[in-house]
Amino acid sequence: MQSTSSYRSIRVLVITLLAGLSVPARAFAQGDPLPSWNEGAAKQAIVSFVKATTDQSSPTFVPPEARVATFDQDGTTWVEHPIYTQIVYCLDRVAVLAQTRPELKRIEPFKTVLSGDRAAIARLTKKDLLTILAATLSGMSVGDFKADVGRWLASAKHPRWNRLYTELTYQPMLEVMRYLRDNGYKTYIVTGGGQDFVRVFSDTVYGIPLENVVGTMGGTSYGYAKDGKPVLTKEPTLLLNDDKAGKPQGIYLMIGRRPRAAFGNSIGDREMLEYTAGGDGARLMMLVLHDDAQREYAYGPAQGLPDTKVGTFTQALYDEAKKKGWTVISMKNDWKRIFSFE
Amino acid sequence: MQSTSSYRSIRVLVITLLAGLSVPARAFAQGDPLPSWNEGAAKQAIVSFVKATTDQSSPTFVPPEARVATFDQDGTTWVEHPIYTQIVYCLDRVAVLAQTRPELKRIEPFKTVLSGDRAAIARLTKKDLLTILAATLSGMSVGDFKADVGRWLASAKHPRWNRLYTELTYQPMLEVMRYLRDNGYKTYIVTGGGQDFVRVFSDTVYGIPLENVVGTMGGTSYGYAKDGKPVLTKEPTLLLNDDKAGKPQGIYLMIGRRPRAAFGNSIGDREMLEYTAGGDGARLMMLVLHDDAQREYAYGPAQGLPDTKVGTFTQALYDEAKKKGWTVISMKNDWKRIFSFE
Repeated sequence: MQSTSSYRSIRVLVITLLAGLSVPARAFAQGDPLPSWNEGAAKQAIVSFVKATTDQSSPTFVPPEARVATFDQDGTTWVEHPIYTQIVYCLDRVAVLAQTRPELKRIEPFKTVLSGDRAAIARLTKKDLLTILAATLSGMSVGDFKADVGRWLASAKHPRWNRLYTELTYQPMLEVMRYLRDNGYKTYIVTGGGQDFVRVFSDTVYGIPLENVVGTMGGTSYGYAKDGKPVLTKEPTLLLNDDKAGKPQGIYLMIGRRPRAAFGNSIGDREMLEYTAGGDGARLMMLVLHDDAQREYAYGPAQGLPDTKVGTFTQALYDEAKKKGWTVISMKNDWKRIFSFE
Repeated sequence: MQSTSSYRSIRVLVITLLAGLSVPARAFAQGDPLPSWNEGAAKQAIVSFVKATTDQSSPTFVPPEARVATFDQDGTTWVEHPIYTQIVYCLDRVAVLAQTRPELKRIEPFKTVLSGDRAAIARLTKKDLLTILAATLSGMSVGDFKADVGRWLASAKHPRWNRLYTELTYQPMLEVMRYLRDNGYKTYIVTGGGQDFVRVFSDTVYGIPLENVVGTMGGTSYGYAKDGKPVLTKEPTLLLNDDKAGKPQGIYLMIGRRPRAAFGNSIGDREMLEYTAGGDGARLMMLVLHDDAQREYAYGPAQGLPDTKVGTFTQALYDEAKKKGWTVISMKNDWKRIFSFE
């Protein structure tokens, strides 16, 4: 029989261990890990996948180091309509640029952006947008860029909800990320958006450390600031367009492992899901269908939904998903709640 | 006062937690974490740095997520003389290539490599080597490449020691990696060598998971095998040359955080150390000087050591290190043991 003081010291040790060692939350969490999901095939697919890959007795058990789950961002983990958030940032930043480079006020496509004429801005071509992206996403130090994005995110608001863009994340997907991490999965963002842009907020918004963000990658140059300290400057060179076939390429480059689970919502994610499905054992491929105009947006053109150039989900992709056993998530039917503020 | 059964259940919980949750080994390790290092300034610099950045009461304490340590590979964590290991692999692979592409036997520089004439091979130009690298490191699926490198590493031996190349790692550096990891650091390889090449063995040789390998990066293409499954094929396109200024660029791209500690041995590592030193708080910059011809090799040309093109350590780099407080490790004086098999 131990003395009381010995018992107390063990209790202190237990508490210390519990506090400091990031014990999997599932060991203590109560109830449903996916409370914002309605009961149904989509929710069931997630739970079944986790059990099939983490139960030691399962024939499709996956060792912890191979537990990789990848999430597209725009339209999969946060709102992408009416326009990608990063594009809004770049358009907003043209005005900042014009303060130090007033000649932009007379040069297209900057002139149009600065005019504030929404109809004209909506007519900008893809080439115009690339010109704007190159101008607003390069030429500054990586530290200045990070600070600028941080300031913008802290104040810019989505016109429909009048809320910060980082508030417009999908609560059900945040729950999936946490549920996977609680079961030993490493979660990654794999986005067509800029890697540097998303890294600014991935940790606070998704609980995903910045090194786990794979995105469209630009080059940097190495030089020196006035005080002689080394500085990395963002250059307008493209290393990898992390979209479509670029997603498996980016995953191979940055992670080096084939995902076990992949989440997307558009034709930009097709190859990522296909690559994920190409491995053996249990795999989970999911696509969010935006079919909820009331609570969010409705677009496809799959299933007769309105067509869009932002997050296109074609009927061909829908049919391929059904044929291959990829799960289509109906925002309207599968999600009990979309945003945390609801 | 608790009952005995309650005490027992707590004890079981403690044991379970200790067993399952990868408690830092330092909490239980006994004695010297760096037994292959002689007492001296180099060893002291490592121990002091770890204490300064992991002791909660230290003014230079670093939170766990920011604990990043980067290691060059060739000449820093394993033998690089008389020639880089990956070059030996590529030269060996020319013969394999020639089996399916017999025309190479008549085309330079492949003809010279296949001749086996060591003197002629040693005279190959840098351009010749790049031709050989492009031919032997691309054109196959990433899976086939990984398997081929694995087979080669399991049999190819260094001529001087007649041992596998993976046995020719420096025991003192393996101890530093472990010591840093035991103190919450993430360890990375940051090498001018091929990222895909080093990822094949980083886990088993260094305990570094493949996603923590930053190296020279080549492009891939996404396509389909005969069975319709997706395949990534290695292409002869260069995304990033992870050498000199390319090292901080590669670190920013792949890790996104400035290292707190960086280890190198040549002019190829200068910018990585400079970038590491450019941050605030406690930083550790170390360079291995190969001054031990008896146990390994001696080359510089710093400090009057013989000049070399493989792992050049100039006098200017030596002087810069001394001036800036970067620690030069003398292989001869600081390392009690170089290889684990000694």
